[in-house]
Amino acid sequence: MKSRSMDGNGALEKEIPVTHLLDRYKRTRNRTVSLCAPLRVEDHVVQPAVFVSPPKWHLGHTTWFFEQFILSGIAGYKLFAKDMAFMFNSYYEAVGERVLRSDRGNMSRPALDEVMAYRDHVDRALEKLLEAGSITPAMAGILELGLNHEEQHQELLLTDLKYILGHNPLFPAYGPFQESKVENGISCPVEIERGVYAIGHSGEGYHFDNELGRHLVHLEDLTIGDMLVTNGDYLRFMESGGYSEHDHWHSEGWQWLQENDIKAPLYWHHMKGSWYNYTLQGLAPVDRTLPVCHVSFYEAFAFAEWKGMRLPTEAEWEVAQGRFNWGQRWEWTQSAYLPYPGYRRVPGALGEYNGKFMVNQMVLRGASVATAPGHSRPTYRNFFHPHLRWQYTGIRLARR
Amino acid sequence: MKSRSMDGNGALEKEIPVTHLLDRYKRTRNRTVSLCAPLRVEDHVVQPAVFVSPPKWHLGHTTWFFEQFILSGIAGYKLFAKDMAFMFNSYYEAVGERVLRSDRGNMSRPALDEVMAYRDHVDRALEKLLEAGSITPAMAGILELGLNHEEQHQELLLTDLKYILGHNPLFPAYGPFQESKVENGISCPVEIERGVYAIGHSGEGYHFDNELGRHLVHLEDLTIGDMLVTNGDYLRFMESGGYSEHDHWHSEGWQWLQENDIKAPLYWHHMKGSWYNYTLQGLAPVDRTLPVCHVSFYEAFAFAEWKGMRLPTEAEWEVAQGRFNWGQRWEWTQSAYLPYPGYRRVPGALGEYNGKFMVNQMVLRGASVATAPGHSRPTYRNFFHPHLRWQYTGIRLARR
Amino acid sequence: MKSRSMDGNGALEKEIPVTHLLDRYKRTRNRTVSLCAPLRVEDHVVQPAVFVSPPKWHLGHTTWFFEQFILSGIAGYKLFAKDMAFMFNSYYEAVGERVLRSDRGNMSRPALDEVMAYRDHVDRALEKLLEAGSITPAMAGILELGLNHEEQHQELLLTDLKYILGHNPLFPAYGPFQESKVENGISCPVEIERGVYAIGHSGEGYHFDNELGRHLVHLEDLTIGDMLVTNGDYLRFMESGGYSEHDHWHSEGWQWLQENDIKAPLYWHHMKGSWYNYTLQGLAPVDRTLPVCHVSFYEAFAFAEWKGMRLPTEAEWEVAQGRFNWGQRWEWTQSAYLPYPGYRRVPGALGEYNGKFMVNQMVLRGASVATAPGHSRPTYRNFFHPHLRWQYTGIRLARR
Amino acid sequence: MKSRSMDGNGALEKEIPVTHLLDRYKRTRNRTVSLCAPLRVEDHVVQPAVFVSPPKWHLGHTTWFFEQFILSGIAGYKLFAKDMAFMFNSYYEAVGERVLRSDRGNMSRPALDEVMAYRDHVDRALEKLLEAGSITPAMAGILELGLNHEEQHQELLLTDLKYILGHNPLFPAYGPFQESKVENGISCPVEIERGVYAIGHSGEGYHFDNELGRHLVHLEDLTIGDMLVTNGDYLRFMESGGYSEHDHWHSEGWQWLQENDIKAPLYWHHMKGSWYNYTLQGLAPVDRTLPVCHVSFYEAFAFAEWKGMRLPTEAEWEVAQGRFNWGQRWEWTQSAYLPYPGYRRVPGALGEYNGKFMVNQMVLRGASVATAPGHSRPTYRNFFHPHLRWQYTGIRLARR
Repeated sequence: MKSRSMDGNGALEKEIPVTHLLDRYKRTRNRTVSLCAPLRVEDHVVQPAVFVSPPKWHLGHTTWFFEQFILSGIAGYKLFAKDMAFMFNSYYEAVGERVLRSDRGNMSRPALDEVMAYRDHVDRALEKLLEAGSITPAMAGILELGLNHEEQHQELLLTDLKYILGHNPLFPAYGPFQESKVENGISCPVEIERGVYAIGHSGEGYHFDNELGRHLVHLEDLTIGDMLVTNGDYLRFMESGGYSEHDHWHSEGWQWLQENDIKAPLYWHHMKGSWYNYTLQGLAPVDRTLPVCHVSFYEAFAFAEWKGMRLPTEAEWEVAQGRFNWGQRWEWTQSAYLPYPGYRRVPGALGEYNGKFMVNQMVLRGASVATAPGHSRPTYRNFFHPHLRWQYTGIRLARR
Repeated sequence: MKSRSMDGNGALEKEIPVTHLLDRYKRTRNRTVSLCAPLRVEDHVVQPAVFVSPPKWHLGHTTWFFEQFILSGIAGYKLFAKDMAFMFNSYYEAVGERVLRSDRGNMSRPALDEVMAYRDHVDRALEKLLEAGSITPAMAGILELGLNHEEQHQELLLTDLKYILGHNPLFPAYGPFQESKVENGISCPVEIERGVYAIGHSGEGYHFDNELGRHLVHLEDLTIGDMLVTNGDYLRFMESGGYSEHDHWHSEGWQWLQENDIKAPLYWHHMKGSWYNYTLQGLAPVDRTLPVCHVSFYEAFAFAEWKGMRLPTEAEWEVAQGRFNWGQRWEWTQSAYLPYPGYRRVPGALGEYNGKFMVNQMVLRGASVATAPGHSRPTYRNFFHPHLRWQYTGIRLARR
Repeated sequence: MKSRSMDGNGALEKEIPVTHLLDRYKRTRNRTVSLCAPLRVEDHVVQPAVFVSPPKWHLGHTTWFFEQFILSGIAGYKLFAKDMAFMFNSYYEAVGERVLRSDRGNMSRPALDEVMAYRDHVDRALEKLLEAGSITPAMAGILELGLNHEEQHQELLLTDLKYILGHNPLFPAYGPFQESKVENGISCPVEIERGVYAIGHSGEGYHFDNELGRHLVHLEDLTIGDMLVTNGDYLRFMESGGYSEHDHWHSEGWQWLQENDIKAPLYWHHMKGSWYNYTLQGLAPVDRTLPVCHVSFYEAFAFAEWKGMRLPTEAEWEVAQGRFNWGQRWEWTQSAYLPYPGYRRVPGALGEYNGKFMVNQMVLRGASVATAPGHSRPTYRNFFHPHLRWQYTGIRLARR
Repeated sequence: MKSRSMDGNGALEKEIPVTHLLDRYKRTRNRTVSLCAPLRVEDHVVQPAVFVSPPKWHLGHTTWFFEQFILSGIAGYKLFAKDMAFMFNSYYEAVGERVLRSDRGNMSRPALDEVMAYRDHVDRALEKLLEAGSITPAMAGILELGLNHEEQHQELLLTDLKYILGHNPLFPAYGPFQESKVENGISCPVEIERGVYAIGHSGEGYHFDNELGRHLVHLEDLTIGDMLVTNGDYLRFMESGGYSEHDHWHSEGWQWLQENDIKAPLYWHHMKGSWYNYTLQGLAPVDRTLPVCHVSFYEAFAFAEWKGMRLPTEAEWEVAQGRFNWGQRWEWTQSAYLPYPGYRRVPGALGEYNGKFMVNQMVLRGASVATAPGHSRPTYRNFFHPHLRWQYTGIRLARR
């Protein structure tokens, strides 16, 4: 079960300019609210799978982060209500008791309007702090972390609300959100030469602790696709019996298929002889020209096996990424999520992010249509369990 | 898992006067809505346990019953929306596909206002039918069944919303609903003499098929309490180690205790050295003078064993019931829920009620504070699995 | 999960003649061993389902009973080994720690020859006691209970070893044991008149506590079959779609069918276009003329519904049983397993038998081909959970 | 659930000298049998955990491998019995139906003597083939694979029988097998300099496909221990509260602790105030000077975190391994089990080994006291799920 990333976050080692922080704060906070605008009150409450969080929970949890890690230490700050920490703490074991993840969808209270009042309360206090210029560099660092944290939750919020609406038998549309566009590549594979390359983050920009420690890796000759695998490619795999030939699959992938009766990507439905998929605009026929989406690592691997190709490693992807377009789909790699050489997590509650998830998960690289503007970068490491597929995941192939 | 009764219902073998039906229809339908009045929109959506249904679901399902079994056969009636049957059918296997019971809490749509519009649509059509006097006796019979069905759902609605609010860490109050009152008995046991008695329904009044077939039973001499077991009585059982002495318990009851770490009735919390319980008015200290509530059959049995007494059978209860007060608590009996001699269920979808639940459940007799006015009678047979306790269940003892 | 009966047992209220006890002891103990004679060592060890016990366990547990409840109190008796109580106590919570029921099949030690040495040790001590004539009436009572207990385990032993061999893909035969014979009835239903009858045990003979308390019941007019339902009858039910028509089934029975993909009685296999069943003599075509076997209560009920008939209650069966043959199959009744009026269990560890299983189980009446000679009687109450079918269960119908 | 390695195996790309093969065949086959010599028949049958296989199954499965992949293609070879493939195929999906892994412990037949007869039958046929000199190079390659496969099963056989005996409440000893010896190091850490190194297999010797593809890796400066972590070191971790401080653990490791109530390594028991552990020689006090054993990856990681150190990667281990002793314990690394660059699996059923397990498992390096003589090498990659610990697993630390 996925339970982090978005509660994960960054390491901050140097001062961040306070100017523009107020503006950035307002912009980020407003975007979360505006993503919920098309929803009904009822849509904010439910949790149809344990890896999904109700939108109300995202609204509260991102707010709690600022209250817990910044405001609660400010003299004179008055907690909105002491229950909020209990309701909206996610996994920070160091910070105390919390509602079980699997119970989030059972919590009808606090009601949505109370959560919105909580947001207002915290926003007013933080904005006052920023306007007064009384924010310290350490606090600014945490603030920036909180904004990146909120951007991560915006991504989850979108994929969670898609899951909520897309698993409702009425298939209600969310709105005019565009999930996919045709890639205008020329299908010209990118060649990278054998040798030693540096990967990982260095320098000035924002980053999480898991990207830190720029280091050398040795790569073999590489040929990697400049375009994502399309629905048409994937349909050929399905039509050739890809889901019933154990030979393409990991042993655990095959077991996952059988136990969950998987026959197609998530959100695909076979109706009246053809394939439809649910998108945020509603149910529509699958378009063969668009990049495939909502596949698990197991499916991405099996597809690659069937093609006689393979997924790239995260190091290969990072080295090659300047030579192709990316950003529509999180791309599965063949790399497990593990610490970089010299990795050290931040001490204390803020250190409970990335390190403790470094087992049993696979790395995804790139970004997706759900990623907040400005949030992605070439060294960014996303990660999920291999069976999960409610993110905008996709496939890019490398030559074996 | 409990999945009926309230979707269960009655057999109708004779004409029901159409006069007053319109009034009764309006009164019953309005009562359901008024029970929801203290709730927030969010409270209508969640399902914190599989045996609980979201209030929105009760509002829709009771409405669907009238549309499905009366209106859909009327020339000129226009279905409100064809999705409603799928969303609000409960277990009537004969009537087609339906949302899995365990998924009811994942359904944010139709939104509450759509369900209320559905209610209005159906109510207007039915009221028009009644006002026109064009209702047949068969339809009147189904209508009466539908109203009894809705009364059963009112009871479930109250116990479900108590479960929703009572399992929220904020313990929000529902309102001034009074769940318990002190019994003014003189604790004078009722004596019944050995002999043959008749039980079961006969005559004119409304009834369900499971009460039918008045028949003879032979009873031994009986002494039965004229008052319910109180919280004080039950606390003595707890304080004497009742929950840790396997000797009092059924083997399956003991296993249920261990697996669920049960130490007290449902809604009881040990805080700061004393016992509190959640009621619809909020969290409050347990009052020793009130009748105990929210115990399972396993707990009722273990309590009786500890006292050296026993639970009455349903036949004993029915024969003795005229000699004590009842109506606050559904009272567990020592009888399994089984067909009376000569039991036959109604053919067709309307016959999918009672008969198919006659295994693995125990009979409760009486009525509770959640029972709709006029809904109870001495021959009424309620039934639940022995581990369930979210109804207003209580204990009355007989001598062994 | 079934976990008793055979560990259950009787109430003893009066002296039992010591004469013949030695002979009866030897005969009963030897019969258990001889039932195991056709087995390989390996067959004594495994536990392919949680309700099955390894034959080695039956051999040890029946022996432990005599050591624990008789010999351990005798001055000068030396325990064979103190581990045996831990290994072979079954559910007697009052007597201390024990191996979890679900772990019995993981216990390769004590090895079979050690268990047989344990039997010898206990048998020699008990025989010496009996030969010396130094047994008290109380001990004789417990001894008789122990022998009845062992007879119950002989029945379980046979059905457990059938399960072990019958679930092996090689379908090894056990030996020439005959499970079924054609009934030579004339299919002439038995008629019983409405009135008050007495049921339950009284008088001199051996009995368990659950049969005690002979009491009056009032029956309606009854017509009950003089012959058991045959494989041919049951095949017609199957061929007419009985397993795919929800209307015949209890709601929980239907769920049990779906979850376990049940399509026929236990041990039936559809091969090359026809039905075979495994018997202790090996795999053979189903014989339409023999009584059906290995059906659950759910299946017995559904079959009766399909026929427009019903199962008899246990009181009806007991009143009518003198007028038909029985003894091949345990016959499912429509009665739940509940205490008779005035039921009281024996105090102490020996009282942990019947009473604590009186919930969620159905009564079977009669006896089966696996029942020990002389063990059955008209008042005997057997009981199992409604989904279990590895006993030699069958169906007798009554008119609705 | 672990389900391979030992059913996994090697790639063979060149001729193997037929000379000495006969001798090696006999030696390897005999060693498997002699490992079982101290067991009782009963010990060969049981399966106390799903990742354990009964010794009887190992005896049959290793035999089946030679019959299936060599003998069945030989003209004139007569199958011992056609059931054996069904009984002893493990996971080779390409080769047909098989007994579910979780059902292996339910199979009392074929009996042990039949399995031994099967071994004899196959051994005689294979030895005849070898003596006749009629074996082809391709067959010799498969034979060598089969012998390595059997050596892997010898290791599993030992750890499985330890699990069987060590989970028996009687704690029977297996025999004089020595599991641990004190390391005579001087605790002088090994230093490796930053740079590019080659890892993976090349050249003549035997190897599996997952080691192939010698390739370059870039390492940072490394300090790695020359001695394994001892029981004494580990007890200090336990005594300092290591199992109750979430901060040391992966999120999934912490969950595993809670769900399984883990408080110490496998086979450790707290008795009368001190720690004992079960070894193949029986139950004995934990010796602080010996290397710790039977820890999961989660525990190894948490221990390292507590020490402020880390586990080495598999590349680091391989580069450094010439400078310390290894071979008592399989050593957990911080590397996930993933394909080396250019990895390709063998086509067909024999290719169903390693590749399909390359997800969700961690690499172990070295060898253990249970490893067959001559079976280990510096490039060998073993792998298990992070929660498993019934192998002889240990911990070596590197500096963070």
